[in-house]
Amino acid sequence: MKIIIAPDSFKGSLSAIEAANAINRGIKKAFKEAETVLLPVGDGGEGTMETLVAATGGEIRTVSVTGPLGNQVEAAYGILGDSETCVIEMASASGLHLVPEEKLSPLQATTYGTGQLIQHALDDGFTSFIIGLGGSATNDGGAGMLQALGMQLLDGQGNEIGHGGGELNKIKRIDLHSFDKRIKDSKFIIASDVQNPLIGLDGASHVFGPQKGATAADVELLDSNLTNWADEIEQATGIKLHDQPGAGAAGGIGGAFQAFFPVEAKRGIDVVLDYIKLDEELTNADLVITGEGRVDSQTVFGKTPMGVAQAAKNRNVPTILMTGSVGKGIEVLYDFGVVSVNSIINNPMSLKEAMEHAEELLESSAEQVVRSYFYQSVKEKGGHLLEN
Amino acid sequence: MKIIIAPDSFKGSLSAIEAANAINRGIKKAFKEAETVLLPVGDGGEGTMETLVAATGGEIRTVSVTGPLGNQVEAAYGILGDSETCVIEMASASGLHLVPEEKLSPLQATTYGTGQLIQHALDDGFTSFIIGLGGSATNDGGAGMLQALGMQLLDGQGNEIGHGGGELNKIKRIDLHSFDKRIKDSKFIIASDVQNPLIGLDGASHVFGPQKGATAADVELLDSNLTNWADEIEQATGIKLHDQPGAGAAGGIGGAFQAFFPVEAKRGIDVVLDYIKLDEELTNADLVITGEGRVDSQTVFGKTPMGVAQAAKNRNVPTILMTGSVGKGIEVLYDFGVVSVNSIINNPMSLKEAMEHAEELLESSAEQVVRSYFYQSVKEKGGHLLEN
Repeated sequence: MKIIIAPDSFKGSLSAIEAANAINRGIKKAFKEAETVLLPVGDGGEGTMETLVAATGGEIRTVSVTGPLGNQVEAAYGILGDSETCVIEMASASGLHLVPEEKLSPLQATTYGTGQLIQHALDDGFTSFIIGLGGSATNDGGAGMLQALGMQLLDGQGNEIGHGGGELNKIKRIDLHSFDKRIKDSKFIIASDVQNPLIGLDGASHVFGPQKGATAADVELLDSNLTNWADEIEQATGIKLHDQPGAGAAGGIGGAFQAFFPVEAKRGIDVVLDYIKLDEELTNADLVITGEGRVDSQTVFGKTPMGVAQAAKNRNVPTILMTGSVGKGIEVLYDFGVVSVNSIINNPMSLKEAMEHAEELLESSAEQVVRSYFYQSVKEKGGHLLEN
Repeated sequence: MKIIIAPDSFKGSLSAIEAANAINRGIKKAFKEAETVLLPVGDGGEGTMETLVAATGGEIRTVSVTGPLGNQVEAAYGILGDSETCVIEMASASGLHLVPEEKLSPLQATTYGTGQLIQHALDDGFTSFIIGLGGSATNDGGAGMLQALGMQLLDGQGNEIGHGGGELNKIKRIDLHSFDKRIKDSKFIIASDVQNPLIGLDGASHVFGPQKGATAADVELLDSNLTNWADEIEQATGIKLHDQPGAGAAGGIGGAFQAFFPVEAKRGIDVVLDYIKLDEELTNADLVITGEGRVDSQTVFGKTPMGVAQAAKNRNVPTILMTGSVGKGIEVLYDFGVVSVNSIINNPMSLKEAMEHAEELLESSAEQVVRSYFYQSVKEKGGHLLEN
């Protein structure tokens, strides 16, 4: 009996690693001889770097870089256990969490620090990158990142423009001569779940600008500025980002990667699943247990449990889902190889109580679910595993 | 796939029948071709009569009798589907629920009405009885019941004593001449989970008196009066009830049955399980699903899920338990053939919410549990049952 334990975090109560450990304890209480493989996963969004580093036995390096509003911040990038792959989350240097809510300003915020992180990693000799988008405070089309890596973005007078989405209308020429040469010899996997184009009503500014502090007028200005930015990129490279799916990710930094980096785009969860080697472990597995804080029909759209279930289904391995909160519409999950969706709640209790006791609740509910799932097959083999 | 659905009620929210129907709907959603047998069970305490009547397709007859405090009350007895067996719950005529809390008075309360119910059934020609004890408001040692059936309990002046446990000290002679002759030719199964003796610190008065309204002084008086009653019975019959296990059930009416009726004593749950024919249905069943509102280590002591699980284990059929509230110590249940203990709660919620939504919660949790339990075996057979 080989069981793969691949949960997301239970937001607000358990990290993915804590969740995996709790499930593992529950399984061992039910069947002490069960073989378990712990593969805690993120959803490919924020936290991916830590997840991959932990899963592969890698390390984290901390660097001082320019934050979204120009101040210095401590950012980090991860080296996977293969010692070859560098994982950078753009939110680490340029994320919303670095800016107090009242100071959010996508007109000013820059991705410069993300470029510095990449440069540090290049200096350290890395040529293989995973870049996690998402959680950005910026709407600068990745201009700051490109500047940090040596690209010159010049106004009508030949002067370098300043930081932030508010400056992009000034660009009249893109000078690529000093752009870091090591980039074209490296490999970049872009992990993102956003398929929005760069500009227009579905673009970065309209869809994501408001949550970064943009007023309605700011949104119009940012969209117009990104249009100029896309026009200039088209003139410099022949690449037309305007309506390109994914170019609008993380304030348009997705477009900058598409235009100037050798990239492969993947869903965040798929990147995680690739690197935690889920597929390898699945070849002789009997069951996968995944989970997250809340599961409902929205779960089908690219989140962890569905990514795990799909990968498992491809290998003909069934998946059991554990969650704090079962929403509506879970039937759609059955088509993706999900056996059952099980709540960890075992008594009437408040959300606060559930979150405080999430660890023991997950442990004991996982125990009960695997008892149900394996009872018949274990019994056929003599049943001794089920005795106390 | 044959599944027996045998839950108790979920107290305060679902009757046993409603619970069985909800579980059945959940099973049919998971496997529409599943064969299900609905055997809602009581715990052999209050509600047993209705359960058995419903399970066997019997009928209920209503009779006006003397209530615990002498007023007339509507009581009922059941005729099972075999048209031969009569089920009487002593609480129907002499129960706590018939007395407002402020009027509880075990010194006065009588079992006279229970005797009248038996007499009515004898008049209707019945000779086979199931008598459910429990829930009594009385502490009269069954004296009232015996009087209703013609027994004369006489004081020193040869006068009939009055009603209630407060009168038992007056008895100086028991005259059996007018005691209903049909009783000795009938068969009485006494359904009771109480093994207490008639008198002493473990006896009826000390253990159950206070919850029937007895003060500390009342308890002493009642115990002393029951001692006189037991002495007189011993003189009249040679049967010594004082320390007899079960004689203390339902205010000592257990002792009256032991001394004057041809009785067979059984646990309440076993009586229920006998008459709903669980054992017959188990012979070719794959799984039993039982449940009740709350499950913890106390469940082991004679309550429904354990009774069901034990009966199923004897036939080598595993049992799955559904409950609103999982308590501590459920591991002990595994030794009795319980596969898993599953909460119906699927989100953080209050007890009130859980009780209001118990029906849909039970349905959907039962669906998930049977999906987990049968997934592997159904998949081996082609898996079509699991598709939507």
